[in-house]
Amino acid sequence: MGERLVLHEYSASGNCYKVRLTAALVGKPIERREYDIMRGETRTPAFLANVNSNGRIPVLQAGDRFIPESNAASYFVAEGSGLIPSERFDHADMLRWMFWEQYNHEPNIATLRFWMRWLGPDNLADLQRLQIPAKRQAGNAALELMDDHLDGRDWFVGDDISLADICLFAYTHVAGDAEFELGRYIQVSQWLDRVKAQPRYISMDA
Amino acid sequence: MGERLVLHEYSASGNCYKVRLTAALVGKPIERREYDIMRGETRTPAFLANVNSNGRIPVLQAGDRFIPESNAASYFVAEGSGLIPSERFDHADMLRWMFWEQYNHEPNIATLRFWMRWLGPDNLADLQRLQIPAKRQAGNAALELMDDHLDGRDWFVGDDISLADICLFAYTHVAGDAEFELGRYIQVSQWLDRVKAQPRYISMDA
Repeated sequence: MGERLVLHEYSASGNCYKVRLTAALVGKPIERREYDIMRGETRTPAFLANVNSNGRIPVLQAGDRFIPESNAASYFVAEGSGLIPSERFDHADMLRWMFWEQYNHEPNIATLRFWMRWLGPDNLADLQRLQIPAKRQAGNAALELMDDHLDGRDWFVGDDISLADICLFAYTHVAGDAEFELGRYIQVSQWLDRVKAQPRYISMDA
Repeated sequence: MGERLVLHEYSASGNCYKVRLTAALVGKPIERREYDIMRGETRTPAFLANVNSNGRIPVLQAGDRFIPESNAASYFVAEGSGLIPSERFDHADMLRWMFWEQYNHEPNIATLRFWMRWLGPDNLADLQRLQIPAKRQAGNAALELMDDHLDGRDWFVGDDISLADICLFAYTHVAGDAEFELGRYIQVSQWLDRVKAQPRYISMDA
């Protein structure tokens, strides 16, 4: 459990923030190595050969082994803590929300955020521009599904905060960057405040 | 561990097959309920209220609880078996490939298969048609990354078959339906044969 953890990251990425926030909440130190994705620093031959052949961040390094994929890396950091439910159904339900996040939430909300704030609306390719309405609709559908699920619940799984909440929080709390109106989602907004009120919470720019 | 398992599914879906194949390999009985997604049977008010508010299959029912998301449902079925590595890094590495599958593989290979074989090339919307080249390229990149990873390995994680192999197998072995040329990927082709040679293997149409 005591191996040195190094996060290979681009700190403005919500996917990278998931891993940092998880480490903060469970009280594990984590070293940070920054790569500028806008300058292609995760597509260099050295990065592809040594860190991740998929050319993406985050990658968590634990000793001499590497774990790509934000939700898998966060799981590794959280393992053994209260963020991973021990009850078998709750554990699968946590994974359910984490897979849902990667399939239904991130490709819409995080992608629109990247297109609008990093690439910029004027620099999008035609194919990107054409996909905006569908991603806008799917992103709002994701937020609505979350809002419905949280009606009458404090957390996504069971009665306590779990890794599902952390993984969903990362891009939800900055959905305004992609011009989603979070104020329309009352339950989601209150849940965001509950995450921010956690004792060892750190903000994305910390 | 002995609760009754019911799979709410559309049997030609690779995502549903993951859950059935997992159950077969670990020797757990599973009941099947078929829904015709082409006729909207997973978007009815009853389905949305009682099975999955996301309107998607598969959903695994365990007693009176429901687990959407194919990889989470497969995890629930496999838990306690040798398909889930007990070593902590290997476990995270298995999850890494399962998240990668949902983000980099399924949206390209499974989506093209659905568009070409179910909707049909002549019935695609313009936005779908325009996305084909990018999905073709990303699907081939996913297969190439798998091929590179399998060079010198029998399985995706560690020395034995794990749930990562099952989740990746489901849409890879039918990638030809979407006109991907599996013969170009020698390591992948040999790995597909290793999965098919497992003692309790069942085919997708079983």
